[in-house]
Amino acid sequence: MPEYKAPIRDMKFVMQELLDCHSRYERLGFEDATPDMVDAILQAGAKIAEQEIAPLNQIGDEQGCKWDKGEVTTPDGFKEAYKLYVEGGWPTLSQKEEWGGQGMPASLHACVSEMLSAANHSFATYPGLSHGAMATLEEHGSQQLKEMILPKLVEGTWTGTMCLTEAHCGTDLGMLRTKAELNDDGSYNLSGSKIFISAGEHDMSENIVHIVIARIPGSPEGTKGISLFAVPKFNIDPGGNVIDRNTVECGSIEHKMGIKGSATCVINFDEAKGYLIGEINRGLNCMFTFMNEARLGVAGEGVAAADASFQGALAYARDRLQMRSLTGVKNPNGPADPIIVHPDVRRMLLTQKSIAEGGRALIYDLTLLVDEKLNGKDPAVLAQADAKLALLTPIAKAFLTEAGLEATSLGVQVYGGHGYISEWGMEQLMRDTKISCLYEGTTGIQALDLLARKVLGSKGALLKSFGEEVTSFIIANATKPQFTVLCTTLGGYFQKLEKITQEIGVKAMNNPDEIGAASVDYLMYAGYVTLGYYWLKMMVTAQKSIDSGTDEGDFYLAKIQTGQFYFDRVLPKAAGHAACIKSGGESMMAINEEHMLF
Amino acid sequence: MPEYKAPIRDMKFVMQELLDCHSRYERLGFEDATPDMVDAILQAGAKIAEQEIAPLNQIGDEQGCKWDKGEVTTPDGFKEAYKLYVEGGWPTLSQKEEWGGQGMPASLHACVSEMLSAANHSFATYPGLSHGAMATLEEHGSQQLKEMILPKLVEGTWTGTMCLTEAHCGTDLGMLRTKAELNDDGSYNLSGSKIFISAGEHDMSENIVHIVIARIPGSPEGTKGISLFAVPKFNIDPGGNVIDRNTVECGSIEHKMGIKGSATCVINFDEAKGYLIGEINRGLNCMFTFMNEARLGVAGEGVAAADASFQGALAYARDRLQMRSLTGVKNPNGPADPIIVHPDVRRMLLTQKSIAEGGRALIYDLTLLVDEKLNGKDPAVLAQADAKLALLTPIAKAFLTEAGLEATSLGVQVYGGHGYISEWGMEQLMRDTKISCLYEGTTGIQALDLLARKVLGSKGALLKSFGEEVTSFIIANATKPQFTVLCTTLGGYFQKLEKITQEIGVKAMNNPDEIGAASVDYLMYAGYVTLGYYWLKMMVTAQKSIDSGTDEGDFYLAKIQTGQFYFDRVLPKAAGHAACIKSGGESMMAINEEHMLF
Repeated sequence: MPEYKAPIRDMKFVMQELLDCHSRYERLGFEDATPDMVDAILQAGAKIAEQEIAPLNQIGDEQGCKWDKGEVTTPDGFKEAYKLYVEGGWPTLSQKEEWGGQGMPASLHACVSEMLSAANHSFATYPGLSHGAMATLEEHGSQQLKEMILPKLVEGTWTGTMCLTEAHCGTDLGMLRTKAELNDDGSYNLSGSKIFISAGEHDMSENIVHIVIARIPGSPEGTKGISLFAVPKFNIDPGGNVIDRNTVECGSIEHKMGIKGSATCVINFDEAKGYLIGEINRGLNCMFTFMNEARLGVAGEGVAAADASFQGALAYARDRLQMRSLTGVKNPNGPADPIIVHPDVRRMLLTQKSIAEGGRALIYDLTLLVDEKLNGKDPAVLAQADAKLALLTPIAKAFLTEAGLEATSLGVQVYGGHGYISEWGMEQLMRDTKISCLYEGTTGIQALDLLARKVLGSKGALLKSFGEEVTSFIIANATKPQFTVLCTTLGGYFQKLEKITQEIGVKAMNNPDEIGAASVDYLMYAGYVTLGYYWLKMMVTAQKSIDSGTDEGDFYLAKIQTGQFYFDRVLPKAAGHAACIKSGGESMMAINEEHMLF
Repeated sequence: MPEYKAPIRDMKFVMQELLDCHSRYERLGFEDATPDMVDAILQAGAKIAEQEIAPLNQIGDEQGCKWDKGEVTTPDGFKEAYKLYVEGGWPTLSQKEEWGGQGMPASLHACVSEMLSAANHSFATYPGLSHGAMATLEEHGSQQLKEMILPKLVEGTWTGTMCLTEAHCGTDLGMLRTKAELNDDGSYNLSGSKIFISAGEHDMSENIVHIVIARIPGSPEGTKGISLFAVPKFNIDPGGNVIDRNTVECGSIEHKMGIKGSATCVINFDEAKGYLIGEINRGLNCMFTFMNEARLGVAGEGVAAADASFQGALAYARDRLQMRSLTGVKNPNGPADPIIVHPDVRRMLLTQKSIAEGGRALIYDLTLLVDEKLNGKDPAVLAQADAKLALLTPIAKAFLTEAGLEATSLGVQVYGGHGYISEWGMEQLMRDTKISCLYEGTTGIQALDLLARKVLGSKGALLKSFGEEVTSFIIANATKPQFTVLCTTLGGYFQKLEKITQEIGVKAMNNPDEIGAASVDYLMYAGYVTLGYYWLKMMVTAQKSIDSGTDEGDFYLAKIQTGQFYFDRVLPKAAGHAACIKSGGESMMAINEEHMLF
């Protein structure tokens, strides 16, 4: 099993040096989020992730969760680790002080989340889902509901879930059948069955609050008749105390490809008591707030998986002796050279590394915008944050999870046949991270969101706005001799993105299927280019530190070298996607479905 | 679990219509391999694959193999299915009549192997390894050894293995430690430990013959001192009868990502009695014969996985109702349209389909060349077959397994979250097929074999020879208006391949690391182009049938449409690889390994 070390140095580079988080924190009123405090939090987060949670990763995979008569037992050690997590105050980190939180920035929570996910994807789903439930309640719940529920969720002694999917509807939530009937006391009785509920039932918390979408009888059909409810496993009195068991039951858990330590539950509601969140029939709008944040969280899983797999592969590549370097013996005292001397092994390692570090920069920038949205006052800045989040969230979610999956697959390849053997832990990373390409909206759904809703839906405004940011960065740096070529390259890719966008827009006016035909390749192209922008930003920042004198020259040089690798060997993959888009959708729509197989 | 149907119609299209197998069979002396006989064999193969072997696929994954004190128990039903397989005479299909075989072409065996692998990858490893052992013995074994061993192997009551890898050496076989000491009677005593031995121990056959590489004391170090041996689990008398247990033991089996029904064994030899195969110190040369054939077999696994996943995804896409088509309601009587109406779902399905069918054409062409090699007399034809096999085998192995992995990943995506759940069987296909990118030489090793040994090693001769074949095909068809554009496109890609090759060759003269830096992208580029060639050949063949009148117009039209999709949406991915190659290897070699992680 590869030993996970939280990449604190890189996290601080991105947060503090690249994104200048502290001046933003100051402006947003996070007085306590000082450099010393950020450092202390990252160190403490690393400690629990590395020492308590990472060691349970393989056990979780081997044992999985166990279901027995509605009760779910998590793998050995999960319960105890979660207790430590709560005792350490981690669930409270970025929650409001009003509900018992520490009032730290959401972006700082995202750093810790990345550590948890890299250490143990399965474990991280439990606090992850809680976080989503809290965000939804805080933004849309009534004061009374918040008082009932939030303090215990924030404390972490209760956990939360999000219940959307039903057996016959995943993407198409308008088809949902779970119904909610009004009681005399203003509460609702919910009946129906939800599937794929992560952390839906387990033995780690005293209560579980399900955030559930359902239809109130008489509401419109489709997505316009969906309302949102909080449905606790144990009923709660207005003071927030547990009373008795609600009629919510876990019917079974799924056997899955990976994240076996995460309980994926069928949750049955049988006239279960629930409380309306937000307005009637506005449930899907309330969910979207959560879903955007959750999608960023899943994007972070892609980064975490790439990083964990990179760390495992790097250690092996430096240790494993096999064949000699083509440019001469590098390890004359050994029977062969370590495989890290071989160019193709380096190609795999640096692909992993550049995805992990480039993705980290993208995600942290977006989580700082989430802080802006939650705490900012300046309408112009808020609008900008909104626009950038809207555009880049589906890119981050789908591109980084697909790239993360590829990175874990490369991690297996670096190990050769050993990568396929469970004890090394590399194949588990690949299995675990595949879920991130599926949940919270598949890659295909993210791509449609990006191209149809965000780019074409805004008539290009969102892309234009991001283009202005990229262009002004290019203009500011193109005159530096070291970066002239890279600025030109990046500018070229971005112009091509704009050109591709226009071409699809024209085609789509005649045939809307051209959007779906282009969407995933478009998202991947945009993803490579977006990461190129963040890489060039990092390279410029690193060069500044070198120029101004530093005793960490090796760190900054490696950053620049990795960025160069990204531009040389990862970014050009975008060319293949552009070429596919150019061909349009005709040949994928032409074939009759009856003739697909003979 | 998706229901597997052997693609007999497509197999016959490729073998008979595209590759004209019957006139080749006639020329090579396979009088019995008539169209009727081929048809009967494919039908019977489909029957056992679909009805007996496919139903064990999921059970195999759930139960895995069990090890107890050196004995391995295969999953429920495997033993019985293997008995049926032997009773049906399948192990004998392409073996020589001299040893009890049916004397059918190896290419026909490859069709049946594809069915087995698609039905149940794990199960297929047992006869697959036997086949390799037989081929090695037949080509390099002494008459006496063949008489001892081959009849029972051909019959299938014994099975075989290939024992190469040791814990410290996989790729770098020159480092092996297993030793073989000569006995007075001319046999050898083998001592050492081998790992990753597929089908190394199981309960399906009466004896297991291990083909083992080992070093005879006093032999040169490295690969020049390796000899090859047959080491039976049960000792055998000269008449081929089992005597007593040899000192060969299965020390443990591996827990793996997939192919859990296939026993991956540690095999310990403790002065075990073995028999030399071929000449002393020529073991690796003997192994290469086998390895080339085995690599083709593994390439077939990629095709099989893509096809099985395609079949599962297609069935689901036609059944699952979710969202409405953007071009108007297609299923007005249902609550939503089947997801096959959505362009991106079609993109995924057609990618799978075009990989499976394009890959099938490539592999069957190569297996027909194997028939040529084994049975042909004309030195010019033999040399041509050799050249083409040498060039295209690493491409087929690595490209089709990587593309097969991607196809199975797309199959999971088509199912959305359900794809991640074990009961649907889609995730198992992805886990099972990942091994094909690793064993018999990883993708990286195939890429080095292609670029360093085959292409540059032949000073471009092998590529030139294949280029002539492609060019003459283009010249013959470019004047047909329907194919002019596609011929030009293919010609352009091939010319670019030649140009890239020259550029790498020039760079490599200054720095041999440029070969490894380019190798995998080069192989992928070559793979996309090679499949483009086979697709265009299929399209031309299909058009001929349409032109000459056919009552299977739908089949041929779908073939042409799928080919057009390949040219539009799969082949252009090559552009990304070409762009990566162009950047060279400087940035991957620059970074100091000490600075990869801070």
